[in-house]
Amino acid sequence: MPKTRRIEGVLAPVVTPFRKDYAPDAERFVRHCRWLLKSGCAGLAVFGTNSEANSMSVAEKRKLLEALVAGGVPASALMPGTGHSALSDSIEMTKAAVALGCAGVLMLPPFYYKGVSDEGLYRNFAEVIERVGDERLQLYLYHIPPVSQVAITLPLIDKLLDKYPGIVAGLKDSSGEWSNTKAMLDAFGKRGFDVFAGSEVFLLDNMRHGGKGCITATGNVNPGPIDNVYRNWRSADADKLQAGISATRKIVQKQPMIPALKGIIAHFGNDPQWMTCRPPLVELNGGQQEALIRDLTANGFSMPGLAA
Amino acid sequence: MPKTRRIEGVLAPVVTPFRKDYAPDAERFVRHCRWLLKSGCAGLAVFGTNSEANSMSVAEKRKLLEALVAGGVPASALMPGTGHSALSDSIEMTKAAVALGCAGVLMLPPFYYKGVSDEGLYRNFAEVIERVGDERLQLYLYHIPPVSQVAITLPLIDKLLDKYPGIVAGLKDSSGEWSNTKAMLDAFGKRGFDVFAGSEVFLLDNMRHGGKGCITATGNVNPGPIDNVYRNWRSADADKLQAGISATRKIVQKQPMIPALKGIIAHFGNDPQWMTCRPPLVELNGGQQEALIRDLTANGFSMPGLAA
Repeated sequence: MPKTRRIEGVLAPVVTPFRKDYAPDAERFVRHCRWLLKSGCAGLAVFGTNSEANSMSVAEKRKLLEALVAGGVPASALMPGTGHSALSDSIEMTKAAVALGCAGVLMLPPFYYKGVSDEGLYRNFAEVIERVGDERLQLYLYHIPPVSQVAITLPLIDKLLDKYPGIVAGLKDSSGEWSNTKAMLDAFGKRGFDVFAGSEVFLLDNMRHGGKGCITATGNVNPGPIDNVYRNWRSADADKLQAGISATRKIVQKQPMIPALKGIIAHFGNDPQWMTCRPPLVELNGGQQEALIRDLTANGFSMPGLAA
Repeated sequence: MPKTRRIEGVLAPVVTPFRKDYAPDAERFVRHCRWLLKSGCAGLAVFGTNSEANSMSVAEKRKLLEALVAGGVPASALMPGTGHSALSDSIEMTKAAVALGCAGVLMLPPFYYKGVSDEGLYRNFAEVIERVGDERLQLYLYHIPPVSQVAITLPLIDKLLDKYPGIVAGLKDSSGEWSNTKAMLDAFGKRGFDVFAGSEVFLLDNMRHGGKGCITATGNVNPGPIDNVYRNWRSADADKLQAGISATRKIVQKQPMIPALKGIIAHFGNDPQWMTCRPPLVELNGGQQEALIRDLTANGFSMPGLAA
């Protein structure tokens, strides 16, 4: 089977809307995904950390993914998160993503057990690849030690690339350390391994060193200006554009990230139901929401075309 | 509906056998559970940390639980782990356990997101209790911050006990800190809240301060002597008995705990397939297994009645 074309550019780890009873809200989800693709996102890393993906079951995520495709979101723009604590869940979710024709999958390491060996992690990813057994699979590793507490090391990447070239396609680096992203670019950039920064703060640096874009929380609310940096990274005013998107991120980051993204969408989309987070996360309180919107508005922030 | 009688004594977080292809092995699982109940365990905390529970899907665990009950293991002896990263998984697994008549469930907090608030954790547990909606539910909280990285705090317990007395039944403390166990006993011991030590090292201390027993990894291989401490904690030689089981644990702990438990069962049960761990865990290597068995044998360790 032919590989789909690889995604490059800005991807949003799409936040997941919930109803009052905490059920995932497919209709609002499809609507937001369509807005993101119209507004600057090259792809959608649905079911990432910012999506509260690990607060949802595989069945709930499969249903949402099917709703996206049925709702006209092209599978070629999708890079769903499919890594779970349980090997069997990772296999099921990855199979479902490949069957739907998704461009790739973004895979967390199993994250319950801590201090596990590279050999154990290698076996986990290898077992998923073998069980999925489909040449179309494009697997992006997801390195986010501040949350997962389990790291994707350089020797692990090397071993996986040796065994599964053409399937192991890249990585999202949410370590928050540019030196780590740089080390990965230096080591694997020439082996068909696409490195995405985990925050737009590193977008320009990443592009200048051979990276392919970023997969970033704030892509949910600020996709246009971030995409502008991606498109113009070689231009004379690239540093100025970068400073602009970094400043916006700094404002959002003053509040807890996931509830803040939802608060922004709720406000600029005139849709308060977007505030809801699934436990264990909690929505912003009134004071937090007020401060967030005030700071963003004072900075000239907007979300063109979001409100119905 | 009448409540089942609460379990007290020694519980094993039963290790889960896997086949060569990493599929859960229900037949070996039932056999080991029956041996444990014959050999000193008052109950079985299946699907705990030591069970590699978080490496299995809800569907796999439900099948194993049904196999146990079908295989003659009394549901009144079962306290399955039902806490997952995903709220919906925790609800499904808890419902299944209650429907089968299990004596209780041992519930991890959602463990992917770190630094979450007590309010978020309260909502998680409250939502599970409300959705299960069954007075038979006996919920034991599972505090294991070294692995989960998410703690069950005293204020959280207090709030849950206030709202759900008679349902919130107790806690397993795997903090590894006696001072924490003691604080929980002091604060909640008189409110029908049963505290289990997470290691037999604290069994005698726990009994002397009003605790109800222990739920311990090594209960998988050394249930008789541990139960002996539980039964004789008021006797004159209790400290000597305690020293004996602590010494055995010390030997086992020299190796990675879960592979070590499986290596011991494989050796003393003449059943090498027991060695297998599901990724991301890895079985002991030859040298580790040899050292473990040599040290245990030198200490007079045995597993009476295990070998077929």
